Amino acid sequence: MRIDDLPIRDDLRGQTPYGAPQLDVAVRLNTNENSYPLPDDVVEAIGKAVQGELRDLNRYPDRDAMALRTVLADYLGHGLSPANVWAANGSNEVQQQLLQAFGGPGRKALGFGPSYSMHPLLALGTGTDWIGALRDPDFGLDPVAAVAQIEEHDPDLVFLCSPNNPTGTALDPEVIAAVLDRARGVVIVDEAYAEFARAGTPSALTLLPEHPRLIVSRTMSKAFGFAGGRLGYFAAHPAVVEAVQLVRLPYHLSALTQAAARAAVAQRDALLATVEAIKEQRDRIVDTLRERGYRVADSDANFVLFAVSPGEASGNQKVTWQRLLDRGVLIRDVGLPGWLRVTAGTPAETDAFLEALG
Amino acid sequence: MRIDDLPIRDDLRGQTPYGAPQLDVAVRLNTNENSYPLPDDVVEAIGKAVQGELRDLNRYPDRDAMALRTVLADYLGHGLSPANVWAANGSNEVQQQLLQAFGGPGRKALGFGPSYSMHPLLALGTGTDWIGALRDPDFGLDPVAAVAQIEEHDPDLVFLCSPNNPTGTALDPEVIAAVLDRARGVVIVDEAYAEFARAGTPSALTLLPEHPRLIVSRTMSKAFGFAGGRLGYFAAHPAVVEAVQLVRLPYHLSALTQAAARAAVAQRDALLATVEAIKEQRDRIVDTLRERGYRVADSDANFVLFAVSPGEASGNQKVTWQRLLDRGVLIRDVGLPGWLRVTAGTPAETDAFLEALG
Repeated sequence: MRIDDLPIRDDLRGQTPYGAPQLDVAVRLNTNENSYPLPDDVVEAIGKAVQGELRDLNRYPDRDAMALRTVLADYLGHGLSPANVWAANGSNEVQQQLLQAFGGPGRKALGFGPSYSMHPLLALGTGTDWIGALRDPDFGLDPVAAVAQIEEHDPDLVFLCSPNNPTGTALDPEVIAAVLDRARGVVIVDEAYAEFARAGTPSALTLLPEHPRLIVSRTMSKAFGFAGGRLGYFAAHPAVVEAVQLVRLPYHLSALTQAAARAAVAQRDALLATVEAIKEQRDRIVDTLRERGYRVADSDANFVLFAVSPGEASGNQKVTWQRLLDRGVLIRDVGLPGWLRVTAGTPAETDAFLEALG
Repeated sequence: MRIDDLPIRDDLRGQTPYGAPQLDVAVRLNTNENSYPLPDDVVEAIGKAVQGELRDLNRYPDRDAMALRTVLADYLGHGLSPANVWAANGSNEVQQQLLQAFGGPGRKALGFGPSYSMHPLLALGTGTDWIGALRDPDFGLDPVAAVAQIEEHDPDLVFLCSPNNPTGTALDPEVIAAVLDRARGVVIVDEAYAEFARAGTPSALTLLPEHPRLIVSRTMSKAFGFAGGRLGYFAAHPAVVEAVQLVRLPYHLSALTQAAARAAVAQRDALLATVEAIKEQRDRIVDTLRERGYRVADSDANFVLFAVSPGEASGNQKVTWQRLLDRGVLIRDVGLPGWLRVTAGTPAETDAFLEALG
């Protein structure tokens, strides 16, 4: 028996599971992980916090993760309280819960591509129709174009991604404000890479007080180097937090996850110390590629999107991706013809990437 | 602003979040937790396993959790391999993924109530229509009645629960076989409490070789005393595992969860040693209540469902529930008029419950 012999949903037939190839390569710059392992004192602090939970694992965890939401609210600042914050197993689960509460059958979500490819997949998985609106050909998004597409489709949810994955550039706050003014439904700003933004880039958190339908989604996978711990969260009006509590799976967040994430947030100075080093490598990749004549998108993230053929109108990104892999450097083909995405990691990883590309 | 001022889904309006009251009471027998904390050597083994993951938390975990699925397949036996097994954050997430793959908008799931109250909520959360079929008035289910309701409604998914929550009794294997013969869609047998079944009760795992649309769902929350660790899993044909991989969130299972669960399965002799002690208390509750004249459902689980008024046709379970709580014993009102459910825990907890009820 094969998968197509099963009564799976028709819209899943012929699909393949989401996910970058997990290959055993020396230099892995394909999933925007933080290249720095956790420092010893952070390992010790998280280990101690987790150890303290083990004896009582026979009991269900705090369904509402109040202690964790308290430290996350404190980290975000902007006058937020635990009632404004919700957490789940990665920002994918956070966004899935939002789609379950505000989307679902008979409703539609809109996003501006190219953007995070999980957004349409999360919509599909929750029975929400997906409207693939478009960014400008240079990957920018201006308020007039954004509002025009929202007025045309009247979505129940709007996904904005800032800094945008896979292009790397943060949105102009005017775009977010314009979308908030016109959209009837909720507006999710996915700020997974916010901590890497260039100086002077405001977070959409600043817009929360006046916009009760705004939801700002974050993750600990990137700047915190906590991808293996799986912790995503959002900040919004307390009523939005109450709404996702109607659809969240009870006890969705394990006692271990809650304790480990609390300890990681408490150790944020040590963990976020990697951010400046990564931004340096990011800027070095951008500058070097531009010096070599490549087109490169401005980056506020820990990755860089670049056109694979300097000086040409377009090149075949599949060929370049394979050539880099042959040289031991794994980057990401995000399905944009002529473009590839590379994660900014350690100086040695940048060396390896730039040399392999050269 | 309140929740109803938000554009939430219409079918969520007026709902309250699922979950038993989390009250700080001395004797908590309301959520079918395993009352025994983890033994010291198990705590040490899990702690060591988790510790080994912390340094590399900056990397995403194994998306497919192969090492964990390998030890779970070994635990289940029945000739199962890792390709037959899938794991997620609790059996709720396992079942949600199955509904996303085989249910969703335009499809329907059927279950026989009274049964696990999350099944219809998981259907709602995935846009799947829910058909509330019925058990007999004495909570039994015979093959003829089960098949008749399936033929009437022709569901895409059937949920069976054995041992059934909240009634406690395992299904006759003939019922499962009859449902498998007649149902067009997939059949999920929720065996969350399988390890507590009375001697001679077969698992639906024995039916897997001949039934490619059968899925047997399990959890580590109960017998393994791992409720805080959140680990549910299922066994099925490998094509079913491939199907849920189309809808699972990428990296849904953290490196910590995978490591802790692997260590707990490796420590299964120590952890499952509590099962016999709990079954003794379960049988003691059943026997004592029957001696006192209460109607009690046969139990193959770590809980007992009993009618609150001995000798009467019906009593008010809310009154009894509150009186027990006033005496420091928290049990569960599952919404069945005249009935209450109590978890079997330690001998001292049984003493407290029996005394408070008396």
